[in-house]
Amino acid sequence: MNKKKTIPAATVNRLPMYLRYLKELAQKGDTVISSYDLAELAGGNGPQLRKDLSYLGELGTRGVGYDVESLIHQISEFMGLNKEQSVAIIGAGKLGTALFGYEGFAEKGFKICAIFDTDLQKVDQKINGLFISDIKDLERIVGEKKIEICIITTPASEAQKVADKAVSSGINAILNFAPVSLKMPDRVVVRQIDLSIELQILSFYKAL
Amino acid sequence: MNKKKTIPAATVNRLPMYLRYLKELAQKGDTVISSYDLAELAGGNGPQLRKDLSYLGELGTRGVGYDVESLIHQISEFMGLNKEQSVAIIGAGKLGTALFGYEGFAEKGFKICAIFDTDLQKVDQKINGLFISDIKDLERIVGEKKIEICIITTPASEAQKVADKAVSSGINAILNFAPVSLKMPDRVVVRQIDLSIELQILSFYKAL
Repeated sequence: MNKKKTIPAATVNRLPMYLRYLKELAQKGDTVISSYDLAELAGGNGPQLRKDLSYLGELGTRGVGYDVESLIHQISEFMGLNKEQSVAIIGAGKLGTALFGYEGFAEKGFKICAIFDTDLQKVDQKINGLFISDIKDLERIVGEKKIEICIITTPASEAQKVADKAVSSGINAILNFAPVSLKMPDRVVVRQIDLSIELQILSFYKAL
Repeated sequence: MNKKKTIPAATVNRLPMYLRYLKELAQKGDTVISSYDLAELAGGNGPQLRKDLSYLGELGTRGVGYDVESLIHQISEFMGLNKEQSVAIIGAGKLGTALFGYEGFAEKGFKICAIFDTDLQKVDQKINGLFISDIKDLERIVGEKKIEICIITTPASEAQKVADKAVSSGINAILNFAPVSLKMPDRVVVRQIDLSIELQILSFYKAL
């Protein structure tokens, strides 16, 4: 069994946070950080951070801390972030086109290299230098551009259908903004962001 | 102590999911649902659902199930969702303007009634029938429009500053899209969506 499969989800969720702060430290010119300080930056604690990083192997030096650059490299490699990854957006509505222009993706090595819609009025329109593609061409373009991740920004009613099409085209990782739970084969990983649910949760807590 | 404060976060996160499926059932004309079936729809299990709903009081009838309409009402009331809530967006870039046009918010009772920016070239431009406001007017407009929730879509470098300003203007709930952890007083509730981190997590799992 792949050892990575046994890593707790909470650890996987925290690793990108450590990476974010390590990159900020590197930009400031810091070369070494203690587990205590890095944990504090990321809003956790030292023992948790050391446990999280232990899944990556023997890192850091007791009493000295972690070398910032090499820890960036190790986490990036562990997460599969050491090479550019091709991403498609399905749904060229307001949210889809906004995400297409979101600079944070490119900075982290995710290149949006196709955007799809079913609406023939949108297809072949150009946004940010890229033509909107017909969803009918999904499989061909996913193959040509070696796309492995897609972001779904369609209405809820369309999401399952386009997700099925994406998976049969070879995509195995989906970030789903449509407010519906996708039913997918086990090998497909789905992360869901439901914007309205985030506000509903805030609504609950703000009244306490 | 407010009893609601003792409710597990996982329960609070699941309640809006139940609500979503209950509303779909109501639209289809279903009037009653068993805990088993509702749990299945929401991707959980019966005992967990009954435990979650037990925090709301005595609901449902053993052997019969839950009345769909009254459960919608009870969860909505419990979450503070029975009245329209005013929301501001801070940061009129691509993501901010896209969220401003996102119809899912209004459907769930969240009215975006102001959008702010620091860029004077944007201020007083009109998008979707609303003028972009100068961040300098935040406190006045938050007071006038009784805004309690804000969505931050500024660059990371600006987010802490505008969050501080929002909180001193009376806002106590923040949905933060800026890729930075906000340091806020305990009474302020923050939910963070980091889009790049979502892709990084997908990157890890898709390679397993």
